[in-house]
Amino acid sequence: MQTIFIMVKCDLGRAYDVADLAVQSVAEVSEVHSVSGQYDLMMKCFLEDGEDIGHFVTGQIQTLDGVKDTFTIITFKAFT
Amino acid sequence: MQTIFIMVKCDLGRAYDVADLAVQSVAEVSEVHSVSGQYDLMMKCFLEDGEDIGHFVTGQIQTLDGVKDTFTIITFKAFT
Amino acid sequence: MQTIFIMVKCDLGRAYDVADLAVQSVAEVSEVHSVSGQYDLMMKCFLEDGEDIGHFVTGQIQTLDGVKDTFTIITFKAFT
Amino acid sequence: MQTIFIMVKCDLGRAYDVADLAVQSVAEVSEVHSVSGQYDLMMKCFLEDGEDIGHFVTGQIQTLDGVKDTFTIITFKAFT
Amino acid sequence: MQTIFIMVKCDLGRAYDVADLAVQSVAEVSEVHSVSGQYDLMMKCFLEDGEDIGHFVTGQIQTLDGVKDTFTIITFKAFT
Amino acid sequence: MQTIFIMVKCDLGRAYDVADLAVQSVAEVSEVHSVSGQYDLMMKCFLEDGEDIGHFVTGQIQTLDGVKDTFTIITFKAFT
Amino acid sequence: MQTIFIMVKCDLGRAYDVADLAVQSVAEVSEVHSVSGQYDLMMKCFLEDGEDIGHFVTGQIQTLDGVKDTFTIITFKAFT
Amino acid sequence: MQTIFIMVKCDLGRAYDVADLAVQSVAEVSEVHSVSGQYDLMMKCFLEDGEDIGHFVTGQIQTLDGVKDTFTIITFKAFT
Amino acid sequence: MQTIFIMVKCDLGRAYDVADLAVQSVAEVSEVHSVSGQYDLMMKCFLEDGEDIGHFVTGQIQTLDGVKDTFTIITFKAFT
Amino acid sequence: MQTIFIMVKCDLGRAYDVADLAVQSVAEVSEVHSVSGQYDLMMKCFLEDGEDIGHFVTGQIQTLDGVKDTFTIITFKAFT
Repeated sequence: MQTIFIMVKCDLGRAYDVADLAVQSVAEVSEVHSVSGQYDLMMKCFLEDGEDIGHFVTGQIQTLDGVKDTFTIITFKAFT
Repeated sequence: MQTIFIMVKCDLGRAYDVADLAVQSVAEVSEVHSVSGQYDLMMKCFLEDGEDIGHFVTGQIQTLDGVKDTFTIITFKAFT
Repeated sequence: MQTIFIMVKCDLGRAYDVADLAVQSVAEVSEVHSVSGQYDLMMKCFLEDGEDIGHFVTGQIQTLDGVKDTFTIITFKAFT
Repeated sequence: MQTIFIMVKCDLGRAYDVADLAVQSVAEVSEVHSVSGQYDLMMKCFLEDGEDIGHFVTGQIQTLDGVKDTFTIITFKAFT
Repeated sequence: MQTIFIMVKCDLGRAYDVADLAVQSVAEVSEVHSVSGQYDLMMKCFLEDGEDIGHFVTGQIQTLDGVKDTFTIITFKAFT
Repeated sequence: MQTIFIMVKCDLGRAYDVADLAVQSVAEVSEVHSVSGQYDLMMKCFLEDGEDIGHFVTGQIQTLDGVKDTFTIITFKAFT
Repeated sequence: MQTIFIMVKCDLGRAYDVADLAVQSVAEVSEVHSVSGQYDLMMKCFLEDGEDIGHFVTGQIQTLDGVKDTFTIITFKAFT
Repeated sequence: MQTIFIMVKCDLGRAYDVADLAVQSVAEVSEVHSVSGQYDLMMKCFLEDGEDIGHFVTGQIQTLDGVKDTFTIITFKAFT
Repeated sequence: MQTIFIMVKCDLGRAYDVADLAVQSVAEVSEVHSVSGQYDLMMKCFLEDGEDIGHFVTGQIQTLDGVKDTFTIITFKAFT
Repeated sequence: MQTIFIMVKCDLGRAYDVADLAVQSVAEVSEVHSVSGQYDLMMKCFLEDGEDIGHFVTGQIQTLDGVKDTFTIITFKAFT
């Protein structure tokens, strides 16, 4: 499994609709948090090994209604 | 109670309308200051413990007529 | 009275010492909040009308032991 | 419980030592990920309701040997 | 008297119209300079003590035809 | 005469010493203002036509004791 | 041969169409990678010695349907 | 003579039209280079002593068809 | 195989030593390019599937003598 | 011939020494201008076709006594 984080900026007032939509309609999205700072949401996604992250971000997240911009952070190792 | 600050950029010339509107119509807004720098307003808000800050910012502040962008700062401890 | 906000970045691990020191030793500091984001503290200060803000910031806040950088925001009008 | 994320930049070559140290010695740290971009690590922490986040970040994380800078992101609501 | 500086970015090609308009129609504007860098104009304004700077910037300057963005710098003490 | 503005960041707590020193010892400095934001001082300087601005900034201002960084803004036309 | 890299930001959801189009229709494009961070794509291009890079970037890449912004990085020497 | 440099960002795909137009129709433009990085063009212009640089930039360059943004750099002394 | 790019800033004047050292001593480094802009080098590295990218960047690249800062870009899919 | 521009930030007060030194000791440097903004100098250099730009910048310019940082801009085509 690969774990990635996507910071998402939404159209004004639309962040919670986007969050609900992401959780309900995108299987790889495991958690969405509304967050402080300049972005509205941080999404944690689990992708199968070998699943194309770029295809996922541009095809599944950027196309959600209400998304304005994304910034993708890849994780390498989890220390737990 | 939770205390947060929201920096707000408004449509040109609309900042004082936004400030009035926020104070009058949003109960959690305790003070609004017009400020120097790149933002027009800084809003100090008190939310009940457990009230969802993200829902408040995107649902109550970003949707005020004349708001263009927001940046949210959370406070942790007040030293007084 | 003039109300100003000062965002303060402190030496690593020193922010709460700085906050305590500011509240105890600087009369104009009315509230200090530890905050999210890139700064450690936000200080709200009340200065007498006519008191020199720049002299206050550079002479009273920048000289507190543990302060690394400051960013000053001036307020113009309070909507309450 | 409160969930926060802390982006951490470390001294050159020290990131994995910092990650190990954080996981082993700081109870609130639940996951640390090494990440792409300008930061080295992203830490996910669970704090008790009412635990002071600023005190935790400056006192427990900034003081870990090898930490150079931190950026704190607060989460408000988890959509799962 | 309070002295403030306002950096102004204008619609393409409109900066000198904005400068003329500001000088002619806004009494508080004492000097406008066209400047190097990313902004087009720097306005020096004198406001009466107690005059609301935020109201002035958003109501008198941001509403001038051709203004696109403003950044406000407050002065505290003049050393002359 | 050429009019220029120099934004100056000073060593912590040293801004007013720098301001006094600049006004007293540098003839071209006509006004120094302590200012809001990320810089400590804004200096307005009048140079003779043909005087070399770069030589002045690096030789007369950057060398003042307590100066840490400078940003130079050139003015082209004054609208008054 | 000259090797250059072009970071490309695309219209939301369009990055993979742009990548396919670039590879298929622009001979100089040797590899396109979808990438983490704020850009969507990184294109590696080989140009003949003497081929005009600026003409290539603005005429062949910026005009691809779905491209929103480009940032060009020139390479000087390859160490292999 | 005064020498200035103007960094120019153009509408997508329009940079070479802008460059040709600038060289052909603006007498003060002595060289235009297409460049690496975030801007498309760098223009070197010679203005008569006393010619108003701001008027030139906003009136002659910003108004060229296809120009989106400008950043002006003034030179003080040429070392040759 | 995983392909990553690492932008590297080096101590002044040391970039070519760093490039030589990286190519000779780090097996995963397949190409190093000296580049335009704010960074000195761009390294393209191939890692085995499952090799820990963060461990590689902090342990193998940040520790090279002469490296000052790194910025890591992950690739997802190669279009060729 | 290849034409490049290098923006140079110098140690405080050292810019004109750096400029003199560059012109006198580095054959490829054809003009140095002291400039407005955040950098102190802009150097225009002519390199033989095939001369390695990265080697030149890091080996000949970054090593000049008094240089603190460089930013390299490559030109592609000259419109004259």
